[in-house]
Amino acid sequence: MDPIFAGTTRGRTALAGYLTTALDAVGAGVRTRGGPIPAGEPDALARAWAAEFGALLPENGAGPETALTEVVTKLAEGAADPADPACAAHLHCPPLAVAVAADTAVSALNPSLDSWDQAPVASVLEDRLVATLAGLTGYDGDTAGGAVTTGGTESNLMGLLLARDRIVRGLTGTEAPQTGIPAELVGKLRILCSSVAHFSVARSAGLLGLGERAVVPIAVDEADRMRPDALCVELMRVRERGEVPLAVVATAGTTDLGAIDPLEAIAELTYAHRVWFHVDAAYGGGALFSDRLAPLLAGIGRSDSVGLDLHKLGWQPIAAGVFLSRDRTGFRTLDRTVAYLNPADDEAAGYRSRLGLSLRTTRRADAVKIAVTLRAFGRRGLGELVDRCHDLARYAADAIGADPRLELRAEPTLSTVVFRYRPPAGGDPDQANARLRRALLASGKGVVGRTTMPDRSGTAATYLKLTLLNPATTQADLDKLLLDLLGEAELAR
Amino acid sequence: MDPIFAGTTRGRTALAGYLTTALDAVGAGVRTRGGPIPAGEPDALARAWAAEFGALLPENGAGPETALTEVVTKLAEGAADPADPACAAHLHCPPLAVAVAADTAVSALNPSLDSWDQAPVASVLEDRLVATLAGLTGYDGDTAGGAVTTGGTESNLMGLLLARDRIVRGLTGTEAPQTGIPAELVGKLRILCSSVAHFSVARSAGLLGLGERAVVPIAVDEADRMRPDALCVELMRVRERGEVPLAVVATAGTTDLGAIDPLEAIAELTYAHRVWFHVDAAYGGGALFSDRLAPLLAGIGRSDSVGLDLHKLGWQPIAAGVFLSRDRTGFRTLDRTVAYLNPADDEAAGYRSRLGLSLRTTRRADAVKIAVTLRAFGRRGLGELVDRCHDLARYAADAIGADPRLELRAEPTLSTVVFRYRPPAGGDPDQANARLRRALLASGKGVVGRTTMPDRSGTAATYLKLTLLNPATTQADLDKLLLDLLGEAELAR
Repeated sequence: MDPIFAGTTRGRTALAGYLTTALDAVGAGVRTRGGPIPAGEPDALARAWAAEFGALLPENGAGPETALTEVVTKLAEGAADPADPACAAHLHCPPLAVAVAADTAVSALNPSLDSWDQAPVASVLEDRLVATLAGLTGYDGDTAGGAVTTGGTESNLMGLLLARDRIVRGLTGTEAPQTGIPAELVGKLRILCSSVAHFSVARSAGLLGLGERAVVPIAVDEADRMRPDALCVELMRVRERGEVPLAVVATAGTTDLGAIDPLEAIAELTYAHRVWFHVDAAYGGGALFSDRLAPLLAGIGRSDSVGLDLHKLGWQPIAAGVFLSRDRTGFRTLDRTVAYLNPADDEAAGYRSRLGLSLRTTRRADAVKIAVTLRAFGRRGLGELVDRCHDLARYAADAIGADPRLELRAEPTLSTVVFRYRPPAGGDPDQANARLRRALLASGKGVVGRTTMPDRSGTAATYLKLTLLNPATTQADLDKLLLDLLGEAELAR
Repeated sequence: MDPIFAGTTRGRTALAGYLTTALDAVGAGVRTRGGPIPAGEPDALARAWAAEFGALLPENGAGPETALTEVVTKLAEGAADPADPACAAHLHCPPLAVAVAADTAVSALNPSLDSWDQAPVASVLEDRLVATLAGLTGYDGDTAGGAVTTGGTESNLMGLLLARDRIVRGLTGTEAPQTGIPAELVGKLRILCSSVAHFSVARSAGLLGLGERAVVPIAVDEADRMRPDALCVELMRVRERGEVPLAVVATAGTTDLGAIDPLEAIAELTYAHRVWFHVDAAYGGGALFSDRLAPLLAGIGRSDSVGLDLHKLGWQPIAAGVFLSRDRTGFRTLDRTVAYLNPADDEAAGYRSRLGLSLRTTRRADAVKIAVTLRAFGRRGLGELVDRCHDLARYAADAIGADPRLELRAEPTLSTVVFRYRPPAGGDPDQANARLRRALLASGKGVVGRTTMPDRSGTAATYLKLTLLNPATTQADLDKLLLDLLGEAELAR
């Protein structure tokens, strides 16, 4: 079969045709689905799909048009569609059409950011994007460094890696990437973060060889914000036990309540203790675009590193994480000269690579779609979209608060609303809420999130959650989603 | 500004328009470039581009059409274009148009593989793709596990993580992700790989807290293949020193010579020593599609884990890595129940997530484009493309061998050709070759690779390299590339 490559003149013509096929297939699949998620029980759906996909690698191919139509139609039929206002469970945004188009150009040209001669202009563009977002964060764009990541998980790992290697170097004079964690520090390094920080902090500790027991959870207030007094006490206790604080990770936008830790206070404490200060702003970083919400993040510029996710409040196709560090010299721990990628004499001649800014080698130019979007919408345009999501959350919270069948857990901070259904007397509220969510999913009418949080008495309980990342959602859409949810609850009685 | 999301009916219409704009911008940029890479000195290019990108985040946006046109035109103008036959430096393939179209559908629908309710059908599709590729590798698709990765670097990290945590569990009964590396194993874990294995093996050792000193390099033969006798001796020495072999990493396709380690012999040794056997088949894995070349990988199915990169010999847009492990129970080290993603009662009800198969949380459905391509071309279609690249390498090697101004380093195994220019008497061959490559780059006429290898006397020397991943390249294209290279050499005299 004749291969047609996207980058050639002939390839662009063929690509235009395939794109029409793909968009038609998406349209057909979306019409078949007819709602935010395919209706049905998950096991039955999975069996049917597995049978349809069958052998994905036949001896002889079916041809591009057939394969594209078949697979993409199914993909759309069976998607949880974040562009549908009733799909409101996760930090899973509807992507902007213009960002998707920019991403297509990247797929067609296929730059790879591990060497200059695979990505000349894309390397410069990523460098400028990092400087721009560093400036937005409050860093000095001239001395900060960073790179686009696959998301908050990779950004948290990067922050903890740079912190680990700085503390090991400072205390023992050894380079952890070369020597490993020195014996005198084994079992002693500690990461402090709030008890509701993202699980990727613990996972990173496991990956880095510290173990999850290195994570010291700090108590939160009633709104899930880290308590500075608790952090202060734990930092002292860590020292008293002869342990070493590796980093404090603050969360700017928890997954559930959107809680933002008190960044100024944490900055003061980490400065006093000379501990690396990383901010997981995967969700809340989007507030930096908004005049109304940016003050919630005051102090973020005093951190040592930060992770932002533009595939959350930024409306990018996955992946569009960004890791930034105030002082780019900290990346030395990832420095590496590789004969086939960035030999010293090529670097000296100006052929500079971005290999030492990322844990990956081959690396897609996800900076491009972000740059196009920032330029297309500007800070105000994006801020307005953030504000719309915030307004939707406030509307939903009011609607929930006004309905006696529902119980609002907390006023929204960003764009999530945590609540639960009050089952009829005698019903177990945890089971009732979990089943209600699954019933709504299986009906194909709505996708709401769930989580576990302490109820007002302090007992862990199952809650439902709306995560509102679609600025095109209307109040009527939210009314309907809540009505459908309560309709399922009626059916279950 | 009105946001238009790709997933809606209106959004698909807008997207079609933006895609036309993007492809036109790519075409315009490619015409301006006029060759495989922009001509000019890198510092001057970087200054000009940085000035053009200016402030990427204006207060008020320029609008989608303007931003898209400006950024994408520059992206294409300043790209190193793998679809140009004279772009032949790296494992950086021209992507198939049909895969780019499938990738666009993924960008538009934006599934995320960390929970069922963000990616119902995409989860099933990735599961089927993993089973299919596991079968191709020689694993049992019913018991193997895996996930799509960002590339060989992440796949190598995954293999070493699973191996680390298995050995820690086996020797000490502790779970490394929870407890960290136990004191009795600190400084004792060893990874054995050939001296020319990819640098990501060492980088992973650094990340995992073992340090790069954990890597024991094994001697290679004259064709850069690991010597089984040397591996046997080093495994014994590791034991004698009281150290613990964590894993043996074999390479199936080194970056330079495309060398494939003797997998059968390594399987025997790792079985005897009960050591985890990981195969880095990022490059060579593509040979599995080819009747002619697949025998070079005999034994790969006896490994414990393997990494394949379909963005190399698979013609996918980045990223399309695949990590596979023979026994999916080894993933337990990544198992995690998260209240908001995969609570136990949801999993029991059939809402199964793929969170525990990857180091990432949010995760793009890169499986889709791979599945479309496998189905479109079939094993034979892809095998034919692999064979064409192999034929091109053999042709180039013959042409180089027949030219007295050039010196062939070795016959090609897969699709790379390592060689160097013989400078006139008195010239330093290392400097001459490095400069020659940069002169060709600056001329905008060709992108050839470079590396450092021992010459025939055993002294480290600078070589040039063709990495031929474009099956549409012709013999005449290769003749012209070599002619342009020698033309630059003449100019430099």
